[in-house]
Amino acid sequence: MDNAASTPVLDEVIQEMIPYLKDHYGNPSSLHTLGREASHAIMNARKRVGSLIGANHREIIFTSGGTESDNIAIKGAALYARKQNPEKNHIITSMIEHEAILEPCRDLQKKGFDVTYLPVRNDASLEPSVLEDAISQKKTALVSIMFANNEVGTIQPISQLAKISHDKGRNTIFHTDAVQAIGKVPVNVKSLGVDLLSLSSHKINGPKGIGALYIREGLKIDPLIHGGGQEFLMRSGTENVHGVVGFGKACEIAHQRSTEYQNKLTTLRNYLIDKVIDQIPYSRLNGVRDNRNPGNAHFTFFGVNGEDLIIKLDEHGIAASTGSACSVKRQRPSHVLKAMGFPYEEITGSLRLTLGIQNTKSEIDQTVSILSEVVKGLRLLSPFNSRHH
Amino acid sequence: MDNAASTPVLDEVIQEMIPYLKDHYGNPSSLHTLGREASHAIMNARKRVGSLIGANHREIIFTSGGTESDNIAIKGAALYARKQNPEKNHIITSMIEHEAILEPCRDLQKKGFDVTYLPVRNDASLEPSVLEDAISQKKTALVSIMFANNEVGTIQPISQLAKISHDKGRNTIFHTDAVQAIGKVPVNVKSLGVDLLSLSSHKINGPKGIGALYIREGLKIDPLIHGGGQEFLMRSGTENVHGVVGFGKACEIAHQRSTEYQNKLTTLRNYLIDKVIDQIPYSRLNGVRDNRNPGNAHFTFFGVNGEDLIIKLDEHGIAASTGSACSVKRQRPSHVLKAMGFPYEEITGSLRLTLGIQNTKSEIDQTVSILSEVVKGLRLLSPFNSRHH
Repeated sequence: MDNAASTPVLDEVIQEMIPYLKDHYGNPSSLHTLGREASHAIMNARKRVGSLIGANHREIIFTSGGTESDNIAIKGAALYARKQNPEKNHIITSMIEHEAILEPCRDLQKKGFDVTYLPVRNDASLEPSVLEDAISQKKTALVSIMFANNEVGTIQPISQLAKISHDKGRNTIFHTDAVQAIGKVPVNVKSLGVDLLSLSSHKINGPKGIGALYIREGLKIDPLIHGGGQEFLMRSGTENVHGVVGFGKACEIAHQRSTEYQNKLTTLRNYLIDKVIDQIPYSRLNGVRDNRNPGNAHFTFFGVNGEDLIIKLDEHGIAASTGSACSVKRQRPSHVLKAMGFPYEEITGSLRLTLGIQNTKSEIDQTVSILSEVVKGLRLLSPFNSRHH
Repeated sequence: MDNAASTPVLDEVIQEMIPYLKDHYGNPSSLHTLGREASHAIMNARKRVGSLIGANHREIIFTSGGTESDNIAIKGAALYARKQNPEKNHIITSMIEHEAILEPCRDLQKKGFDVTYLPVRNDASLEPSVLEDAISQKKTALVSIMFANNEVGTIQPISQLAKISHDKGRNTIFHTDAVQAIGKVPVNVKSLGVDLLSLSSHKINGPKGIGALYIREGLKIDPLIHGGGQEFLMRSGTENVHGVVGFGKACEIAHQRSTEYQNKLTTLRNYLIDKVIDQIPYSRLNGVRDNRNPGNAHFTFFGVNGEDLIIKLDEHGIAASTGSACSVKRQRPSHVLKAMGFPYEEITGSLRLTLGIQNTKSEIDQTVSILSEVVKGLRLLSPFNSRHH
């Protein structure tokens, strides 16, 4: 129940990867047969990734994952734009982005950029006019708004936001972190009108350590890693061939089964939400009901600590999360829930359950039944009990 | 015969990796069992990598490969040092470094750094006094000299160069790109006295897409990729768990069998060199004879074009290289051989054969016999023939 953190690699994906570890182990830059085999495999994967998002294979560069893609997009676009025109030193993003966006923005602030962090509504959705008001035609180099929030699943109106950025800004670049959306909702870079889009493999049943960045043909940005000039000079380093192959296969499967997966995840997710709200008193769904990333459910259970919940659920063999897996070690209250206006006790009482394509209805039944008991047990020990019973 | 470009992943390594794709697929940042399994696996691998080079596990950060490690080391050290002291804007490296060092240095030149590219002797070795003369006590932030050259295999006197950097410079940081040396010669960061050292997995029969950077305890450098704060805040992004596990296993094996592997590679390499020089007229070994990376052999065959050689050898099932796999696509004459003072025709007539732990004596016999025929055939078509016969 924690598929937004990571997903198991499909057997079909593993089977395609293994030959590139052992037999076809060539360096794709080598001229000989071993090298050319590897190079062809990368081209094939590039086409598969491109197909999933409606991009040309030349518009896809492979990276080590979503975080690196976001870093290249944010730093590469902003720094290149400012080199061309020193006035372009303004970046707009939102308060609910992943750390992989927020931290590069903070780094650029130290390098002299102004960054506007847009507020969101209490369901985590962004009001387009808020973006419009923030754009400076002269100064805004880059707008980066995530496609689907990793904690509460709210989907933003990306095509509208991209259009506003291009219409109101002058050469303003629009990036979206689509790591959580890919494979779960239809994503087409051309109809969205985005300039840059980040993808990650391990969120769609591909291997970890590999991701991609869509860079619209004609758009120029700075590379982050310099060296031998791989990935059209945009990302140097010997290619992670087996990782690229696995990611390509995962994209092909996600593409072929997109309708099936989207329907399945939405149905299961709605079933989970209804059942939790129905069976567990003093519980609340956070975020939006429609326009929500299939697979994502996020609740507040009043009077319960989210981390206690996770530990108890884990004892019962259920993996869950309080929010982003990527920041739990820091033990900070979620910046997303804060931006949504949650008071501290509602933040700490939150739980994220995210479904994957391997989950079943009976697993959800089991989860809700255990969750119900666990919440009841924890409330017995909390001040909540005396107040409400 | 192209193991400096890449190596096949050992079966034992693949076997350790697979469970982390499918069953133990957790995100190491997650609090639940799946997450903790992944986190423990990374700790175990970190210890294994540390052991191979005599470092503490806290001094190892995982990256996506040697190129990224080099980029973090060069940019991270130089930019951090200059922030602390604006006078520190000088970097010293050599003319024979890998592009993963040279390109980051060129990038820093655009950002206002002065970079000195030290010349080498005609066997590619660096005279220590040349480094000593180049260091400015006030200005030199960083010295980066590779351990073993990737084209001609020359090993540099790293401990001496590190000592000079520390003695003559003030807080001057010493980095070495040890990607080609690891697993082939003993490398101990403490006895070498280096501050930063780059490693790559796929050069030592581990998977591609994973590498590491040794950062001496207490040394501060800037991260290159910002986000969730993984790898002690030095390298954000969900960890490439199966890659890390595979790299750890490859390091463990390289450590356990180090003497065996080093002896085997040296013996086979000397056998190859002697046989080529003996059986193929007008051939020359480039670089040094002793103090040469085990496994590396590099020849010039007068009157022959190296790329023709590679294509012909490939037709016979032999993988070879003209030089670095990482720059062949650019079709530029090797900057290493240029720095060694080679005229153009000797550069284009060069061939690199690099042995791996899986190679056998009979493969070398076969290679030399085919190479001998191929060189003879190509010379028949070249102006060389009429001049020499």
